[in-house]
Amino acid sequence: MDVKEQVLKIGADALAASRELARLSTRKKNAILEAMAEELDAQRGFIQAENTKDLTAGKVNGLSAAMLDRLELTDARIDGMIKGLRDVAVLNDPVGDEISTWNRPNGLEIKKVRVPIGVIGIIFESRPNVTCDAAALCFKTSNAVILRGGKEAIHSNMAIAGAMQKGGEAKGMPGGAIQLIPVTDREAVKVMCQMTEYLDLIIPRGGEGLIKAVMEMSHVPVIKHYKGVCHTYVDAAADLDMAWKIAENAKCQRPGVCNAMETLLVHKDIAEAFLPKMGETLEARGVEIRGDETACKLIPKAIPATEADWYEEYLEMILAIRVIDDVDTAISHINQYGSSHSDAIVTQDAKAEKAFLAEVDSSSVYVNASTRFSDGAEFGMGAEIGISTDKLHARGPMGLEELTTYKFVIAGKGQIRE
Amino acid sequence: MDVKEQVLKIGADALAASRELARLSTRKKNAILEAMAEELDAQRGFIQAENTKDLTAGKVNGLSAAMLDRLELTDARIDGMIKGLRDVAVLNDPVGDEISTWNRPNGLEIKKVRVPIGVIGIIFESRPNVTCDAAALCFKTSNAVILRGGKEAIHSNMAIAGAMQKGGEAKGMPGGAIQLIPVTDREAVKVMCQMTEYLDLIIPRGGEGLIKAVMEMSHVPVIKHYKGVCHTYVDAAADLDMAWKIAENAKCQRPGVCNAMETLLVHKDIAEAFLPKMGETLEARGVEIRGDETACKLIPKAIPATEADWYEEYLEMILAIRVIDDVDTAISHINQYGSSHSDAIVTQDAKAEKAFLAEVDSSSVYVNASTRFSDGAEFGMGAEIGISTDKLHARGPMGLEELTTYKFVIAGKGQIRE
Repeated sequence: MDVKEQVLKIGADALAASRELARLSTRKKNAILEAMAEELDAQRGFIQAENTKDLTAGKVNGLSAAMLDRLELTDARIDGMIKGLRDVAVLNDPVGDEISTWNRPNGLEIKKVRVPIGVIGIIFESRPNVTCDAAALCFKTSNAVILRGGKEAIHSNMAIAGAMQKGGEAKGMPGGAIQLIPVTDREAVKVMCQMTEYLDLIIPRGGEGLIKAVMEMSHVPVIKHYKGVCHTYVDAAADLDMAWKIAENAKCQRPGVCNAMETLLVHKDIAEAFLPKMGETLEARGVEIRGDETACKLIPKAIPATEADWYEEYLEMILAIRVIDDVDTAISHINQYGSSHSDAIVTQDAKAEKAFLAEVDSSSVYVNASTRFSDGAEFGMGAEIGISTDKLHARGPMGLEELTTYKFVIAGKGQIRE
Repeated sequence: MDVKEQVLKIGADALAASRELARLSTRKKNAILEAMAEELDAQRGFIQAENTKDLTAGKVNGLSAAMLDRLELTDARIDGMIKGLRDVAVLNDPVGDEISTWNRPNGLEIKKVRVPIGVIGIIFESRPNVTCDAAALCFKTSNAVILRGGKEAIHSNMAIAGAMQKGGEAKGMPGGAIQLIPVTDREAVKVMCQMTEYLDLIIPRGGEGLIKAVMEMSHVPVIKHYKGVCHTYVDAAADLDMAWKIAENAKCQRPGVCNAMETLLVHKDIAEAFLPKMGETLEARGVEIRGDETACKLIPKAIPATEADWYEEYLEMILAIRVIDDVDTAISHINQYGSSHSDAIVTQDAKAEKAFLAEVDSSSVYVNASTRFSDGAEFGMGAEIGISTDKLHARGPMGLEELTTYKFVIAGKGQIRE
């Protein structure tokens, strides 16, 4: 079989499995998740041996130390995957939930019921634990999943998927429920993106290049987990002690993630009171500051920001700072340069708060809190498959409910339309 | 300006308008809808004169009688548009509704709030009243809309959109809220499909060719209102009197619409009792029957169906009939040949009902009722913008709620992440 035939066969098998998955009880699904956890544990040695092949090849191919670190399956990381499977088993299963029920004057009873989406494709990059985490969430919601990981992790991904299949199928999981594309040819992604007859959704997880390529190629609906250019706006009416803490947390607590702050906006009226101390705190934490003219005056070590800085997702200890005129300018700045992810205002002024929360067009808008809370677990959703920066179907953190759709179930007694 | 520049300018204006629309109160939006209704009435003569230009050109260009009929703006149809605007004004405005609210252990208060989607593109074919109906629903939900109609209705569409703009803007509607693409060049559709910076959603409404073209071209998310290959399955345990009435209604009450039945599936055990009389009834209504071997034996005037018939959306007085072994075969047939629109089982057997409703993967599944009820108004949603055959964001009839998305609004008192 060539790559296209191989991927299409995987698609057909996934569709067939999705029909069987829709019939599995929650109890059975949870038992299968437990069996997967046990099999991962049993195959720990094999998984790590396969992982070593990837690590060795990665060193030969000159992968960076950061990439090699992400690739490595330490004992702790395998424990994390095993725990993740058990955590998903105890989460509520949304499939079959009645979202609403109503009766029509003609006696028809209409129920809106949660059902699986069907077949979901996940296209991701280096971290092999995504294989396990994403497959578990799709399986719990009775979706078949087709995984396509990066070629630098192919042995690790195959070993993890193989263990999940072996453990799951022994307990009655349909073959085809969890499949990993075994070819690393880029052609495989192209075929996935066009097989609308089998795939209901593609979720790309990774860098900007991957996501843009999938978006431009795909005829299958895509939910993007795109970049987070997150802002904190310190209003004229801010509690400055609170603002210093929130800004420091949003930038420094974990700078490499999508909900970390990348740009700090400061109202001109409090810039002199706020920025010098903010600059000292950030510099003490090792943050490089790129400021507009006013910010550079108030923070001596700041270097001048360029227009490109306002669009930048640094994902590291760099922060852009801009001093602005008012809340409306803050809103305009965020809507123009931001990525519709997570943005916060720090203020004690109800009017500024209301305008900011209503008009900033982002999936999560905060008043007086750190943007770092944008996360499925922090929102109380249990696990998350990622954070959608799209507006359709799912926005912000995506948990199990967001991996379902609905159908209308209508019960009659012979009603016909007049 | 060339076509591309012109369409991009429309996109930029729509995005700017969408920010203003998000700030309009429901009361103001309703007053604007009333002003549009009044202006449509005031411009009735002009609209009909413009419509005559399209009708004259249509005759010259050899449009069919059916197409010319769809194109014509009679007084009754203009009254229908005016009434439609007033009906939308009295519907509940979902924007700002709190879908849910919860508190986290750290004191954060999280609200999931309904917000407009942003900018919606509607690409449609001949009926000019879609200009009014679709624009009204998008406006009511504070979405900016970009309409692109068929070239055969360009004068009519421009006149309707012009009246809505004039009436609405006089009452404070932002310019750019409702725009119709004035060029009929196909290039305009291509530009729309690629302007992801301005458009959040495209809804194509029309024939299979239009929808496929948009789907293949678009980088903007698309919700398809695709064909309806709807089935009625008469089970072995059906009440035959009920089944005759439901099948006749589903096929004949209005055969040209997407929720009409195209294929009748009959359990082999009741085929002899059911099909001869069904055949007589349908023939008396003028229905051409295309049957499998058994159906052709039991209905003398039936002609043999080919494989292609099972996929066909006739939209006219033609019906395919197949005799099958059991409910599982019915489910497999529908999932293979259907279009995931609306499908019904007629049965008194709870087990068959349960399997059918759970396993038929369609947006609306019925027991003991006609598929003709798949409709926003019949479901009690008020108006509908169409019936989605997709699974993401909106499935089945799409009302005002389905033209919104949500955002998370998080209120804190200085919380930072540990």
